[in-house]
Amino acid sequence: MTTLPPSDKALVPFVSVENMMKLVHHIGIEKMLTGLADYIEDDFKRWELFDKTPRVASHSAEGVIELMPTSDGEVYGFKYVNGHPKNTKAGLQTVTAFGLLADVSNGYPVLLSEMTVLTALRTAATSALVARYLAPKGADTMAMIGAGAQSEFQSMAMKAICGLKSVRLYDIDPAATEKAARNLQGMGLSVVACESAEEAMEGAQIITTCTADKQYATILTDNMVGSGVHINAIGGDCPGKTELAPGVLERSSIFVEYPEQTRIEGEIQQLAADHPVTELWRVMNGEAQGRTSAQQITLFDSVGFAIEDFSALRYIRDHIGGTDYYLELDLLADPDDPRDLFGMLQRAGA
Amino acid sequence: MTTLPPSDKALVPFVSVENMMKLVHHIGIEKMLTGLADYIEDDFKRWELFDKTPRVASHSAEGVIELMPTSDGEVYGFKYVNGHPKNTKAGLQTVTAFGLLADVSNGYPVLLSEMTVLTALRTAATSALVARYLAPKGADTMAMIGAGAQSEFQSMAMKAICGLKSVRLYDIDPAATEKAARNLQGMGLSVVACESAEEAMEGAQIITTCTADKQYATILTDNMVGSGVHINAIGGDCPGKTELAPGVLERSSIFVEYPEQTRIEGEIQQLAADHPVTELWRVMNGEAQGRTSAQQITLFDSVGFAIEDFSALRYIRDHIGGTDYYLELDLLADPDDPRDLFGMLQRAGA
Repeated sequence: MTTLPPSDKALVPFVSVENMMKLVHHIGIEKMLTGLADYIEDDFKRWELFDKTPRVASHSAEGVIELMPTSDGEVYGFKYVNGHPKNTKAGLQTVTAFGLLADVSNGYPVLLSEMTVLTALRTAATSALVARYLAPKGADTMAMIGAGAQSEFQSMAMKAICGLKSVRLYDIDPAATEKAARNLQGMGLSVVACESAEEAMEGAQIITTCTADKQYATILTDNMVGSGVHINAIGGDCPGKTELAPGVLERSSIFVEYPEQTRIEGEIQQLAADHPVTELWRVMNGEAQGRTSAQQITLFDSVGFAIEDFSALRYIRDHIGGTDYYLELDLLADPDDPRDLFGMLQRAGA
Repeated sequence: MTTLPPSDKALVPFVSVENMMKLVHHIGIEKMLTGLADYIEDDFKRWELFDKTPRVASHSAEGVIELMPTSDGEVYGFKYVNGHPKNTKAGLQTVTAFGLLADVSNGYPVLLSEMTVLTALRTAATSALVARYLAPKGADTMAMIGAGAQSEFQSMAMKAICGLKSVRLYDIDPAATEKAARNLQGMGLSVVACESAEEAMEGAQIITTCTADKQYATILTDNMVGSGVHINAIGGDCPGKTELAPGVLERSSIFVEYPEQTRIEGEIQQLAADHPVTELWRVMNGEAQGRTSAQQITLFDSVGFAIEDFSALRYIRDHIGGTDYYLELDLLADPDDPRDLFGMLQRAGA
């Protein structure tokens, strides 16, 4: 039998949370958010190439664990993500995630990465990318309703990608508003802490809702929303969890990632199953119109889609080369002779 | 906001290929195979508890990448596995795998492990566990047809779990037969290298077929198989890949892991969709009969099922404590305050 040298394909680069954070600072958060948006836009523009398997969910009384796979025919990716609303009470994250890319031609993984930090970045980059297509011209003020873990990322992405100048923060918990305001000090945005959602919306052309209740909530009532705004609805992202009054939805032009998924998980679960929506990839490709008038209310009913994770993992794969921000894990067995796994095991004990 | 200490749940134990091999030698391969069989048997006995999601496959011209999730309601597990028959030509493994266990109550991963070596061990442990239920009394000789990566593991598991004394090896490639015979020297088995499948089957009460062709092959023809044997058919494990002549199947009492999957992937894809089969978990629970006569041909139509991987990962989780055979990976972000992910990121750059 021939003996080939051990393949470097047996080693899989791994980006830990610590290294992901170092990579963000190494690249610069605004440059990274812009780069992620570019990767996401590239993948949305080739949307039809992708294998869009529905996510595979394992539900329990406490929450859900999901696998979100996709492939563009050359690269395969999946994300593991959980959602456990009660976790915060135990000092744990509601959502944690990690992801993997693999080479379709041989099935070997090529990247394993934390995706808690990366998902926050890609969610914000997607929102800002969409706002760049849909927000009214000259929009420079955002109401940020909900000041949880995603709020600062949303604000920074809107700054980097859409030229946001001012963010008006509101959370039902004043300590959360204060935390986000503090974190955004010195980041190049004018930051206003507000005491009500209505106050936050004064003068805002972009309204981002990102609250965490797992129930039908009404963060925006119909009379709160005037014409000519862009609504970036992040929080409604699973069955039974919505943030907007149906009246707001009915007055809006609604844009979605993947209708099949959004109709189950997004704000539009409140509407008829055939309510018209526009797929964002068609807008980015020029096949469908985005905003058509200054008075229009545009709504991005964001739920998060596997292709965005795929794009984010591609970005990381392309940017860790030449840095120290990854480890090589021997995740895969690579015997010299593929038929001699047992011999490799025996030699390891010698 | 309260500041909780960083949780140790943010660190996920990782067992690399190197550490898995060290763990095998630390425990001892026969003890480990026996232990794995015990864990698999325990999980088969509580079969109905498990969430049996079908595997999620991404097919390409070159092969397949699959995610195999399952859960017993307390622990969630999945395996990533690829199958790329042409990989061996490039010196790569046809199949590589890794797996993960997580806590259903909070969604946090509790173990990440290589599963190339571990899958070889659990496949062999499953075969031997099943043979312990089905093989004729006093069976001590096995014909091992196909001397690839799985053959030595099968032989050692049959020794450890069923009291096998002699293995008769045959592969269409004499170099493979020679490799397996060499690897099994000094392991406590009488090893006979044979020049034909017929020669290998002389005097064998257990016949294991494990060949790798992705096509309808006939490793065992009808006239080769006498009465009173147990056939352990490993190699037929995907659509279009079988090893046994239909006549052998028709004369056998057929036992399977999960009929829904085996009818698509196993030897029984050659039979009518309602051909009677017995589920192994029912045999282990005492709800169904195993071997009922000395003359009967029993057939385990093995395709590998997610619960076996789950059992194997549980075994690893329970046996790495107190050893040095794992690393702690910071796969999950764990900010002191779950709402302050951005603050954690900012502090990492300070």
